[in-house]
Amino acid sequence: MQNIQASIITIGDELLIGQVVDTNSAWMAQELNKAGIFVKRRVAVGDRSDDIWNALDEESKQADIILITGGLGPTKDDITKPLLCKYFDGTMIINEEALRNVKYLFEEVFKRPMVPVNLKQAEVPDVCTVIQNKRGTAPGMWFNRNGKIFVSMPGVPHEMKGMMTDNVIPKLSEAFALPVIIHKTLLTAGVGESFLADHIKDFETSLPETIKLAYLPSSGMVRLRLTTSGFDPESVKKEIESKFEILQLLVAEYLVTNEDEPLAKAIGKILTAQNKTIATAESCTGGYIAHQLTAHAGASAFYKGSIISYNNNVKENVLKVRKQTLAKFGAVSEETVSEMLKGVIDELQSDYAVAVSGIMGPNGGTQDKPVGTVWIAAGNRKNNTAKKFQFRFDRARNIEFTSLNALNLLRKFILSEG
Amino acid sequence: MQNIQASIITIGDELLIGQVVDTNSAWMAQELNKAGIFVKRRVAVGDRSDDIWNALDEESKQADIILITGGLGPTKDDITKPLLCKYFDGTMIINEEALRNVKYLFEEVFKRPMVPVNLKQAEVPDVCTVIQNKRGTAPGMWFNRNGKIFVSMPGVPHEMKGMMTDNVIPKLSEAFALPVIIHKTLLTAGVGESFLADHIKDFETSLPETIKLAYLPSSGMVRLRLTTSGFDPESVKKEIESKFEILQLLVAEYLVTNEDEPLAKAIGKILTAQNKTIATAESCTGGYIAHQLTAHAGASAFYKGSIISYNNNVKENVLKVRKQTLAKFGAVSEETVSEMLKGVIDELQSDYAVAVSGIMGPNGGTQDKPVGTVWIAAGNRKNNTAKKFQFRFDRARNIEFTSLNALNLLRKFILSEG
Repeated sequence: MQNIQASIITIGDELLIGQVVDTNSAWMAQELNKAGIFVKRRVAVGDRSDDIWNALDEESKQADIILITGGLGPTKDDITKPLLCKYFDGTMIINEEALRNVKYLFEEVFKRPMVPVNLKQAEVPDVCTVIQNKRGTAPGMWFNRNGKIFVSMPGVPHEMKGMMTDNVIPKLSEAFALPVIIHKTLLTAGVGESFLADHIKDFETSLPETIKLAYLPSSGMVRLRLTTSGFDPESVKKEIESKFEILQLLVAEYLVTNEDEPLAKAIGKILTAQNKTIATAESCTGGYIAHQLTAHAGASAFYKGSIISYNNNVKENVLKVRKQTLAKFGAVSEETVSEMLKGVIDELQSDYAVAVSGIMGPNGGTQDKPVGTVWIAAGNRKNNTAKKFQFRFDRARNIEFTSLNALNLLRKFILSEG
Repeated sequence: MQNIQASIITIGDELLIGQVVDTNSAWMAQELNKAGIFVKRRVAVGDRSDDIWNALDEESKQADIILITGGLGPTKDDITKPLLCKYFDGTMIINEEALRNVKYLFEEVFKRPMVPVNLKQAEVPDVCTVIQNKRGTAPGMWFNRNGKIFVSMPGVPHEMKGMMTDNVIPKLSEAFALPVIIHKTLLTAGVGESFLADHIKDFETSLPETIKLAYLPSSGMVRLRLTTSGFDPESVKKEIESKFEILQLLVAEYLVTNEDEPLAKAIGKILTAQNKTIATAESCTGGYIAHQLTAHAGASAFYKGSIISYNNNVKENVLKVRKQTLAKFGAVSEETVSEMLKGVIDELQSDYAVAVSGIMGPNGGTQDKPVGTVWIAAGNRKNNTAKKFQFRFDRARNIEFTSLNALNLLRKFILSEG
């Protein structure tokens, strides 16, 4: 049996002028992989007929499944639907169920007056199978040409996601004989990509051809991923899991989590298992650590909250950092973050906490404390640890690096206390 | 003169299995546009020679400039460099400057031992112009074949960004006669895409062929973008600005900002101009509003901080929400957010504040207050306003919608008081 390959075409000028970051493709790829479908290519083209037509031709040469998002809105720059109608030699007809859906959404959900162009949303080519859209007005369209499947969906993320989960993935699983694809990923911290590669080079050489190893460095941490696939789920699973066990042992010293999950989620699991709580005191990261921790469902089990002391008055008045500490050592110092830590534990009554203060840039740096200087403290009521970091370059990256390192310092502290 | 077209090829299995969201392409597209280069296509392929080779062939048929990122790391899954060497019929040689850079980074910056594979980072094909990498070990490579330019850069965002800004964009601007490309974008709130399209249909019809209008709906708001280009900067600018003036007047009722900037940045400008400060009290958004406000440099001028009261104890003890308010009306109620608002203004001593409490899901909903129920209050010491919202679907989207609507309610309150 052969692997089934998909190609994702995203349509919209906003993707080509950089106004929008394409998050749809990553989500779609994950879901396709779970169903046993490999993604071979992803292509983004603008709102121009020739470019879309050309992409449909090209991608259908390379893939069995072509998933298309975008260009289905009601406005003039949305040209995907008439183009697909022409591409598949169809005629536009009204789909009654889609029409009922458009009317329902405007009357009951949006509670906004409908304009004539909204009714056009219910038109579809007569040569497609309609995929109803429960979350918006633009229906999806499923075309089959010589065994190749083309599916057109809206570019609005939650509309596309609803269609994929409810209709597209189940229909594709019926249409093709699909293998299992297994990825096993672990996260390491405190070690560089090349050092890691050298450290596990014998392991890498010993891997069978069916298992692929990848290195994914990001924000000062490195993910290692093993990937395999096959049509016998049991043997595929067994083979990759035995290799993944060995890999975990080899990198034990640097291992953060053996799941493909963010660090914040890994910490949440440890805390929930210990029935302990944390709080955060953030200055320079301005809520980004809190956001990481609360992005995942279940955070209320372990997360008390945060004092974001962007302004020094808040450090003094709410976190009870002493005026003389700020005056003598400055806001970015071991002394200040240690007092912030103590203050937030007292104020929010948590078991553990982490506190950060630093200079994210582009302005605010001095000779002694250049942009990227950060102090982080982690601890509980009895003990704590503080560490200085020196990051560089841009603000967004400094905020991300600071947050990840703060979470990692907290994780190590919790494990050392546990 | 003809427009110069670029194509962006991103390389890496992580893009095709959805492990990583491609943020590089959007940034690159913005920078290229600023320099007068249109992006025609973006393609992502995996770490497979055939697929990369094929992408190079294909994209060079369609574009004048082919920018390639990824696959330049020191590990076995990084195959871009040897492949490019073969593609351009070169031989691998050591680049002395790149070698000095690798040694310097390990000794002075990373302060980590070097392994032999790191030295290979200094090898490049003898048929390229080397682009030195000040932020990492992998040098960039510039190839010219029959007037088409190919540039290979690392996939690590800040390394790629450094090269683009310092070398690639200036070199491309020298190599081609480039037009000016102008985008003018405004943001609207409180109105649907199709209603807006109907409202401005005469304006849209009246636009000359050289100006393109696009609708970008996102998180319950709609951006409108005019785009044009030409080789006479003055006349191009004049034409689009006069149309943009008219568009602003037409949508005045819904206009949030006439810049292509996030809502948080627009609020920051208003506050900085008024010399006023804000604070936030966040429950369900868990720091996301604070993060939006502090993502941009200059936030310390107007942002005091936040109390993130994820746990009700924090609402009571820090924000001074009364026990009986929580007991009688619940955490998600007009009464609670109004007291949170008052509490955070008192505690953080800000001029304005916004407070949110809601149920983000997937769990925690009840019949009375289903997932997506949110109360938001905005105000100052004297006045305030509160509003209930009913969002739907997934947690990430609910957090984003809540944050944007909170910022917009705050913006409207500030303007009404101004």
